[in-house]
Amino acid sequence: MDDQVAFFQRIEALRAGVDRRLAELAPPLGSAPDRLVEAVRYSLLAPGKRFRPMVTLLAAAEFGAPEGAALDVGCAFEMIHAASLILDDLPSMDDAGLRRGLPTIHRAFDEATAILAGVGLLNQAYAVIAADRGLPAPLRADLAGRAAAAVGFSGLIAGQARDLFDRDQLRDPAALDRLNHEKTGVLIVAAVQGGAMVAGAPDTAVEAMGVFARHIGLAFQIRDDLIDAQASPEAAGKDVGKDAGMATVVSTLGPGGARQAMDEHLAKASDALARAGCNGLLSGYVGELFARRKAAA
Amino acid sequence: MDDQVAFFQRIEALRAGVDRRLAELAPPLGSAPDRLVEAVRYSLLAPGKRFRPMVTLLAAAEFGAPEGAALDVGCAFEMIHAASLILDDLPSMDDAGLRRGLPTIHRAFDEATAILAGVGLLNQAYAVIAADRGLPAPLRADLAGRAAAAVGFSGLIAGQARDLFDRDQLRDPAALDRLNHEKTGVLIVAAVQGGAMVAGAPDTAVEAMGVFARHIGLAFQIRDDLIDAQASPEAAGKDVGKDAGMATVVSTLGPGGARQAMDEHLAKASDALARAGCNGLLSGYVGELFARRKAAA
Repeated sequence: MDDQVAFFQRIEALRAGVDRRLAELAPPLGSAPDRLVEAVRYSLLAPGKRFRPMVTLLAAAEFGAPEGAALDVGCAFEMIHAASLILDDLPSMDDAGLRRGLPTIHRAFDEATAILAGVGLLNQAYAVIAADRGLPAPLRADLAGRAAAAVGFSGLIAGQARDLFDRDQLRDPAALDRLNHEKTGVLIVAAVQGGAMVAGAPDTAVEAMGVFARHIGLAFQIRDDLIDAQASPEAAGKDVGKDAGMATVVSTLGPGGARQAMDEHLAKASDALARAGCNGLLSGYVGELFARRKAAA
Repeated sequence: MDDQVAFFQRIEALRAGVDRRLAELAPPLGSAPDRLVEAVRYSLLAPGKRFRPMVTLLAAAEFGAPEGAALDVGCAFEMIHAASLILDDLPSMDDAGLRRGLPTIHRAFDEATAILAGVGLLNQAYAVIAADRGLPAPLRADLAGRAAAAVGFSGLIAGQARDLFDRDQLRDPAALDRLNHEKTGVLIVAAVQGGAMVAGAPDTAVEAMGVFARHIGLAFQIRDDLIDAQASPEAAGKDVGKDAGMATVVSTLGPGGARQAMDEHLAKASDALARAGCNGLLSGYVGELFARRKAAA
């Protein structure tokens, strides 16, 4: 029991460290027009799990990186995530009104500000990686390349386009897995692998960590679909029920089948983690997160 | 005269090489949803001067880089430029209908596609720089950092926000120069300096090339304002008259004063180029470009 308390304290200390560093890496007031800076900080610094930087930090710790070595890289992935939420929520995309329990940025500010803030946050992620002098330059170039691949035309952006334009054609679980991987998984894969790479993990371990992250991403998405199908907006902290009529893993397999698929992804993620030689931090963190969320779903 | 013909042929060969490489670096059909890929290619591959990659290539050549060494870096700057045009033209920003003689991307496709294409092109620029194996990794990291600084909260994005929100407060030429530098100059500076850096130019020369580029950028913007105030959309290939009522160098100094300011920037640019030890290609290219444009304005 004391071990568990110590574990949660460590997790919370890491999360609080991410929040502090994000506040430092966000543009300060006066550095650009106030309205833009306020919008960026509103969005980036809104309370959140910081899941992507957390898995970066925990993956780095699993492979023995010094404390803090992966902090800026983790924050860069959070910036990319925040950018993708801003852009996905825009009126011309999902037209969402609520995010992380707050009005979406285009409602709290305006659409132009939201677009500039989103693009600025994506761009800032590359600035942060490029400026991370604690890491050797070849690693910085490699991390930037992996982040760009996760965001780009075979990643988040392709996923969002497919979701907007081709969703009707997606009726089988494999196609939905592909969409969900593009929309969520690729960035989690990059965040986890980035942490392992900062720690100098061997290539086979980096590879296995990618498999872990892919399955975790798919499990996450199914969980989100379960929440979306069942929960209230207050509980979710964002708009729900927007997928009504759209194919999801929940609509194709039913809630029971979806829960089973989610559990299978979690089991495969766990296997991959064991293959990579990890034995505590990441599985404890993710396991606890899912235990809480499965209860909610 | 034969020298001049040979010079123009060399310039045109470089420009055609940029076009070919851009077509290779753009996502191919089938790599992402068709509608997105088509929009990206529509926008990136529309006929253009390729000014930014051209100054990258010419700066690299001035300092003795092997042919083609700076090609991908130059194309990355063109991608950033194309992204900024797409985003600036959006309905929530400048709401432009015409660009490079064609309907803007949000009119030819739709707003969501335009946003994803713009963000995707910005992101692709970082992918291209990170993947440019012909360059040493520290240089790639440095170039990515400089590109990010040019785009970010003290560059293009800040400039666009200032233009949208604070334009009314800008009435003096110094404030307008700052805005124009953020909106145009910073990226030209990064493109020129990037070329010099690929060639291994000494720091003092890279610095002088930045001064050159800054003044060229300001001269360009004044020229654009002159065109906007006077030309027809057909001649400009984009919407004109949109600055009516807004402060520009032309509205504060009058057309004559603006032309004089433009010529002063060109003279300072020329001085900086001489200081950097350049003696032909760049001044020939830029001089010819301005001779043509001044006639149009």
